[in-house]
Amino acid sequence: MPRKPRIAIVGATGAVGTEIARLLDTRNFPKAHVKGLASRSRSTSTMDIEKITDVSFKDVDIAFFCANSSISQTYAPIAAKSGCVVIDNSSAFRMNHDVPLVVPEVNPHALASHQGIIANPNCSTIIMHMAVYPLHQVYGVERAVISTYQAASGAGASGMYELEQQTREWCAQFKSYSTDVFGRQYIHNLFSHNSRIDPDSGYNEEETKMIRETHKIWETEDVGISATCIRVPVLRAHCEAINLTLTRPASVDNVRTLLQDSPGVTLVDDRDNNQFPEPIMASGVDDVLVGRIRLDSSQKYGHGIDLFVAGDQLLKGAALNAVQIAEALLHE
Amino acid sequence: MPRKPRIAIVGATGAVGTEIARLLDTRNFPKAHVKGLASRSRSTSTMDIEKITDVSFKDVDIAFFCANSSISQTYAPIAAKSGCVVIDNSSAFRMNHDVPLVVPEVNPHALASHQGIIANPNCSTIIMHMAVYPLHQVYGVERAVISTYQAASGAGASGMYELEQQTREWCAQFKSYSTDVFGRQYIHNLFSHNSRIDPDSGYNEEETKMIRETHKIWETEDVGISATCIRVPVLRAHCEAINLTLTRPASVDNVRTLLQDSPGVTLVDDRDNNQFPEPIMASGVDDVLVGRIRLDSSQKYGHGIDLFVAGDQLLKGAALNAVQIAEALLHE
Repeated sequence: MPRKPRIAIVGATGAVGTEIARLLDTRNFPKAHVKGLASRSRSTSTMDIEKITDVSFKDVDIAFFCANSSISQTYAPIAAKSGCVVIDNSSAFRMNHDVPLVVPEVNPHALASHQGIIANPNCSTIIMHMAVYPLHQVYGVERAVISTYQAASGAGASGMYELEQQTREWCAQFKSYSTDVFGRQYIHNLFSHNSRIDPDSGYNEEETKMIRETHKIWETEDVGISATCIRVPVLRAHCEAINLTLTRPASVDNVRTLLQDSPGVTLVDDRDNNQFPEPIMASGVDDVLVGRIRLDSSQKYGHGIDLFVAGDQLLKGAALNAVQIAEALLHE
Repeated sequence: MPRKPRIAIVGATGAVGTEIARLLDTRNFPKAHVKGLASRSRSTSTMDIEKITDVSFKDVDIAFFCANSSISQTYAPIAAKSGCVVIDNSSAFRMNHDVPLVVPEVNPHALASHQGIIANPNCSTIIMHMAVYPLHQVYGVERAVISTYQAASGAGASGMYELEQQTREWCAQFKSYSTDVFGRQYIHNLFSHNSRIDPDSGYNEEETKMIRETHKIWETEDVGISATCIRVPVLRAHCEAINLTLTRPASVDNVRTLLQDSPGVTLVDDRDNNQFPEPIMASGVDDVLVGRIRLDSSQKYGHGIDLFVAGDQLLKGAALNAVQIAEALLHE
């Protein structure tokens, strides 16, 4: 990897692509240049966007893919073949054996084995890991029951726009809502994550991702995970209620200290003033916020811990994690 | 109890009181008359409201209390002493040993022992029980992990108004929000339930109610419950993600059949079309909606079940349950 790599962002005008471009600037990522790629060429106020083709990656060292899975499936292998390292935000390659799936705070060692494509995990998975992996290392997580409160941004800029548009339509007392993205009322409503449901297991794809990706990243299948993924009418930060079963007993004080010292985590756990993680506190913030830390009285004393977390879905849930992967590649 | 009891509604103009008055009409509850009581007299389009005093209950057979706990604490004993049966929606008397705490579908037998005051359980508790108690009877629930998605209506009409007002303020691009009720941004946000946090356990009062009330209503402390109660920007229906550990193994088909046959429950569990319970589907509806029924792969086969439920907080979560209690009293 050159000391100042040439960068491409596929899907540069999308919600995640925009954040990646911004983070490369604000984090002073050393780079020769940044080009945007998309399905058609256009100019934006900050970047020229070229139409993506088979030769787009000849002069690129690191390509961030943040379009959809089918764009990744088509172009990521072409990019990798031309010597570029792909950091893919889609789910296309996450479970491939030769593709590292990386949260830099959790499994940076996995980067070493990449074959040209590195996958960025699912946003709900990353946000969960930031709070839970430090506990797993010290206490051993046997089981996690997770309920998510996911933001519109998980469906991209158009998802956020649809929630905003429905908010305006509610105020204007429209008789029906714009439902192109989610197919239903979203303002003042919530719904089970709109990904495909497996007809056998009954889990939706988002839930299955949280389970399988955790097993891959933690390199163990011995952690039982039950996830219920729900979309709530929030713009860009995901929350998760997490109930853990630990092998070794913990105390609230020890968990607080451990998380306070964990990189990328900020404690928001003020019982006196009822201040705990909220989506608007986490929006635009790099760290994942953790609070409501308490012992679960329904489990053996010290072996059950409850947490509530909030993380910016576009930052640590996507763009920031991808840029951190690129930073780790540079430091190799 | 006379065949046509004289009724009083304390807090008749509030969110729950209004629904009780409506339900008494629409369900053809046999009654001599209905009077509204409140802290000051006034006239509404549907009812004259008298100022509540120590003599307000002399000509009343059934009094629905749906003001706050301190009104209940002051006047419910006075009403009971004057021979009136109080059905109290507040938490003031719920844990008293001589006060039955009743969900008519679960423990109607408890009504027989009342001493003049009957308590209506917490809304999140009632909505959970509608889906979980039928499973408890057949399979035995050992443990339940519950994450709630609670509506503004839990804080009364003023809570709903604040969410609507903030929605209008968002559309008008106001620089700050009306925060009299919840003390923070609610539109496009969510937050841990704004009840007092126990400094020792870390549970908030809403969560403690769900645990203690379940133990009282089910007449057992052998059910472990962990609850995380969260307010979401939804107007009047609560949702809950429920993860159960069962003593005896269940199948998805058997759980579906059981719930389909349970009174007050409607299945909304269409995996093919991704149609599951949503707050707007449950709003204004008597039944609690249940869906996302699936086996939890993190537990012993058949011993873990996940559910997602939605119930109108003002109806089955409050007014409807109270009116059903009154109906049960009449049939005694």
